Amino acid sequence: MTSQFTVHGRLWIEAADGTIIGHGRVNLLEKIDDLGSLSAAATALGMSYRYAWKLVKSMNEHSDKPLITLSSGGRGGGHAELTTTGKEAVATYRRTDQEFEQFLSQQTEKLPE
Amino acid sequence: MTSQFTVHGRLWIEAADGTIIGHGRVNLLEKIDDLGSLSAAATALGMSYRYAWKLVKSMNEHSDKPLITLSSGGRGGGHAELTTTGKEAVATYRRTDQEFEQFLSQQTEKLPE
Repeated sequence: MTSQFTVHGRLWIEAADGTIIGHGRVNLLEKIDDLGSLSAAATALGMSYRYAWKLVKSMNEHSDKPLITLSSGGRGGGHAELTTTGKEAVATYRRTDQEFEQFLSQQTEKLPE
Repeated sequence: MTSQFTVHGRLWIEAADGTIIGHGRVNLLEKIDDLGSLSAAATALGMSYRYAWKLVKSMNEHSDKPLITLSSGGRGGGHAELTTTGKEAVATYRRTDQEFEQFLSQQTEKLPE
């Protein structure tokens, strides 16, 4: 018999300066990687271009090496790409998050009925 | 060398009907257990009596067995006590949360430098 209870949670990674990489930012990085365009990635996530651009700027400024390169071409016309550092950040977050999902399932199984 | 990054998170337990037991409610249960009074527990946590009372009512209504018993005596004069179910709920949450803290430390150690 399974428990009537389930364990849930939220996870994020903080840099020493307090910057946060969580679900939202990782989703944006992945969409940029998929679509090669910040404008298209923002649209796909229902996010304004301005907000997506601010997130990218913040992530690049707070990392030792940039996570995303933006080439010129103006709004909607430019190309966006993840750097190796950006791809590693996504992979690290996804691996951690996957182990977190396993942890939540294990904890749910341990709960009393 | 330790990573410049740390993994953080938040954990809660949901009942089948969606009710949540998280940090705030467990803190309130523990203070009731310590102080034997809902009014004193609310004050200790900087919470209004009205809000604390609503939380207690909600927790009792959504559990198969009540977590807290309130005896009469009016505002500030009554006695509040955790039931066995209430004590078990606190213990379960604290055990889960402790293992979550261990999980976060382990994940932080796995992060790249």
